Amino acid sequence: MAHIELGTSLPGISGLFQYRPSTAKPLTELAETLLREPNSLTRGERELIATTVSRGNECTFCANSHAAIAAVELGVEDVDDAPRSAKLTALLEIALQVRESGRAVTTKAVEAARAEGASDEEIHDTVLIAAAFCMFNRYVDGLGTAAPEHARSYLPIAKAITEHGYVAAAG
Amino acid sequence: MAHIELGTSLPGISGLFQYRPSTAKPLTELAETLLREPNSLTRGERELIATTVSRGNECTFCANSHAAIAAVELGVEDVDDAPRSAKLTALLEIALQVRESGRAVTTKAVEAARAEGASDEEIHDTVLIAAAFCMFNRYVDGLGTAAPEHARSYLPIAKAITEHGYVAAAG
Repeated sequence: MAHIELGTSLPGISGLFQYRPSTAKPLTELAETLLREPNSLTRGERELIATTVSRGNECTFCANSHAAIAAVELGVEDVDDAPRSAKLTALLEIALQVRESGRAVTTKAVEAARAEGASDEEIHDTVLIAAAFCMFNRYVDGLGTAAPEHARSYLPIAKAITEHGYVAAAG
Repeated sequence: MAHIELGTSLPGISGLFQYRPSTAKPLTELAETLLREPNSLTRGERELIATTVSRGNECTFCANSHAAIAAVELGVEDVDDAPRSAKLTALLEIALQVRESGRAVTTKAVEAARAEGASDEEIHDTVLIAAAFCMFNRYVDGLGTAAPEHARSYLPIAKAITEHGYVAAAG
């Protein structure tokens, strides 16, 4: 049961967006900009960064929903079967350092990503996506929201977001 | 030196806002909504939550800038001299649990805040402010941005934000 009375049966962050529309607006715009707007990293790659950080933070709702979205974007059944470039692997390493702490990011990891072809913009966006999911994960779990256990339960959310985007799906 | 070429001498998050305006927009709107829009928690109380989390994450830029803003809002010379209500003390405890992990927030801490008069909205906003600073702190330090050491250096930033708000100050 959630720590506060949300007045909705929507799970995870969906219920929080309904509870507080004025913060839902910048939060969904941030997700839309980072994860879906045109970028040299594909939508699938960016969703994989979100999934990896959410798994690290053990946030069931975010990990399952973004794994489902990533699978749709990458055209695979299971997100863990998707091939990963050496560049994405290096960026995921930076994301996991950000998850631990901003101060944990090493010059070595940044240089390794650059050696695999990552641009400054891609390194910037990787850090901000990872940081943003350290927020989303804490928001969702810090208020004790409900999270369906079965991966299958997240398919409707994944379908709504991949078709209409984060802002529309929350509205 | 920052991990990427920002093309600006602005410190901390100010340089990042200039580097990537499309993410600066939702990020500053989120800060404005959480920290400055009308709320039963005063601006000073909300800035104290931001300061406490940023200190916990050892983010020099965020800790110093929000301590300076909190001091202005609370009308004190040093933020640590400001009196704190029992309700705010209980909310700061929740914020420190969020800093650790969303999963670290206890029903006991939430009930303690409620016993001191905290509303559901105040508990919600405390969790989201704390979560948001886990993002801002990681964004600022994860990209290795510059942070002036002296508390005095943050007075111009504090003055701009308390007078004009986060969106205008970043623009």
